[in-house]
Amino acid sequence: MHQVNVIPYLTTKNLNPENQESPIHFLSKWKTPEEYFYLRNHFSYPHFYDMHFGLMVDGLVSNTTFISYRNILSMKSKSIVVPLECAGNKRSKFVPKVYGEQWEEGAISQGKWRGISLRDLLSPLHISPTAKEIVFIGKDFGKRTDMLGLFYYARSLPISKALDPDTLIAYEYNDKPITFKHGFPLRLIVPSWYAMASVKWLQWIVVIDHEFNGPFQNVDYVYYPNKETDKGKFPVTVLIVNSTIQKPLDFEILDTGKHVITGIAWTGKGTIKKVEISTDNGKTWNTVFIKYLSNESYSWVRWSYEWEVKNKGEYTIKSRATDSEGRVQPEEPFWNRKGYGYNAVSSVTVKVE
Amino acid sequence: MHQVNVIPYLTTKNLNPENQESPIHFLSKWKTPEEYFYLRNHFSYPHFYDMHFGLMVDGLVSNTTFISYRNILSMKSKSIVVPLECAGNKRSKFVPKVYGEQWEEGAISQGKWRGISLRDLLSPLHISPTAKEIVFIGKDFGKRTDMLGLFYYARSLPISKALDPDTLIAYEYNDKPITFKHGFPLRLIVPSWYAMASVKWLQWIVVIDHEFNGPFQNVDYVYYPNKETDKGKFPVTVLIVNSTIQKPLDFEILDTGKHVITGIAWTGKGTIKKVEISTDNGKTWNTVFIKYLSNESYSWVRWSYEWEVKNKGEYTIKSRATDSEGRVQPEEPFWNRKGYGYNAVSSVTVKVE
Repeated sequence: MHQVNVIPYLTTKNLNPENQESPIHFLSKWKTPEEYFYLRNHFSYPHFYDMHFGLMVDGLVSNTTFISYRNILSMKSKSIVVPLECAGNKRSKFVPKVYGEQWEEGAISQGKWRGISLRDLLSPLHISPTAKEIVFIGKDFGKRTDMLGLFYYARSLPISKALDPDTLIAYEYNDKPITFKHGFPLRLIVPSWYAMASVKWLQWIVVIDHEFNGPFQNVDYVYYPNKETDKGKFPVTVLIVNSTIQKPLDFEILDTGKHVITGIAWTGKGTIKKVEISTDNGKTWNTVFIKYLSNESYSWVRWSYEWEVKNKGEYTIKSRATDSEGRVQPEEPFWNRKGYGYNAVSSVTVKVE
Repeated sequence: MHQVNVIPYLTTKNLNPENQESPIHFLSKWKTPEEYFYLRNHFSYPHFYDMHFGLMVDGLVSNTTFISYRNILSMKSKSIVVPLECAGNKRSKFVPKVYGEQWEEGAISQGKWRGISLRDLLSPLHISPTAKEIVFIGKDFGKRTDMLGLFYYARSLPISKALDPDTLIAYEYNDKPITFKHGFPLRLIVPSWYAMASVKWLQWIVVIDHEFNGPFQNVDYVYYPNKETDKGKFPVTVLIVNSTIQKPLDFEILDTGKHVITGIAWTGKGTIKKVEISTDNGKTWNTVFIKYLSNESYSWVRWSYEWEVKNKGEYTIKSRATDSEGRVQPEEPFWNRKGYGYNAVSSVTVKVE
């Protein structure tokens, strides 16, 4: 008898840089296994030597300080389940279409990150009262298509978010050292923000008294509501309320009978309070059963709805999440030129025969 | 220094049955490595014992005969590079959209198949002059959504195609035994036809004097030009002329300067004679450089075109293949209800900045 191993794979969007999507429709765990965590890079992978493991802290602190990896491992740690979602998740769904990686629904994954609070790391270093932001610089760098020069991947956070006790300098994912592709040895983890904030291969932290102006802060990861001008632009920050239908698949053919509609929902403000399902293209809505991961307030929720379908025909199924801040997924997405933050009601169409 | 292994993966469309797409945009070999050959199944994988290795030949032959795998390996063999393309390749591109697996451009792969001519196998068995078709039955079976009962996967060929010297009972792919997922121990290989004809896990061959009427012959793999009625239906058989742009990727952002546009083209009648590229959305066309795989008349061709782009802006690039029978890819696809044979001009849109 043959042993047949049927497993999903990452979906390859690009190899240089490596951008691969999580097979979100075929995963049902709370913690995405490392090999199924989506990959989103801006540059080739960095090269560096083990001797440099650690973090340089610079800028408006009492002393420029190098803190070794070993030292970080010895400090008081905490672990949190955090979903990381690429700001471009679902970009392929925008109409009119927008340029950039054509992510479908799998540029999101979550798991347990362990590390130290950035706040604990910085408190002995006496941040200046004039400090406004903290800049985080990775080891990855390269060219851009839109300007000359070489750029490190660098992002800033406002002081208040940077010093939130849950903003971590992480070194473990799902109880193992973070793998190289996901940022080994140290990755910043910024719960509730889109994942561009969670800088991989973190090497350098700089406290500044002004607004950081790097291209991954002020060119990319900015919502541009207009196709032709930059008017009305504003930065991408906190996750907006969202849900994804995992099963059934879009344009799947089903039997009559009972089917379980499943999916996930998540938000960056508060928690998910309600998920509704429509099986008649939005005419009527039903509240579904939601499972929460206990003691993990950032985690996505998993939901399911038992659908009994007696009549053959075509059905459009929709899911709509609401968070504790009263934010609800809109019927239409907020179109923006670079295609960030798609969170329209999730929809699949099936045929029952 | 870290060794970083960046590789593409199959794209998971479904796990039950296992349907996974080849990462066609990231492959450049003539022979698709086995691990990147697309998978298209109608049912779960079959279970069987090694003792049954071989083929039963039945119907309008002098004697019902069992031919062992070992016996087949001892016969005179030949090898041919054959592309196998799922009839539903590119189905996701039809407008209006159609139900079924939403294949993008990777439901095609090719490589070297070795086996014996079916004609050589059958010649000692004296096919009856009244024979009209030969039916090929795999070991995989299961339920369908549209009718009651259990069905083996079974397909027929007209006698003339079945007895073409290049219709093979294959046992090797790229110089190794065909892997289980691709039909081990024996797979029918039908060059020039869509791959539903190349029955995996072949167990049984039946010569008949009428037209075979199984559901994979007369319900699936039939072009239905009308949404509501079966009027005008006709069977899916030979590959139609087609091409795919591999690079650049759709909605990619490029620099000004030189870029090489690459792709493949293939047909089921004759050979590819010409591939044209337009970089201005079809206003003007340029003939491209074509590479042929020598002595392999069924193989896809590989083409490339050096594009120098000086002006920033949005560009729609198209490729259009012509075969030696004068067949040309159409501007618009032939819409059909089950979504087979999509072969409209291939198109990608890029932004140069």
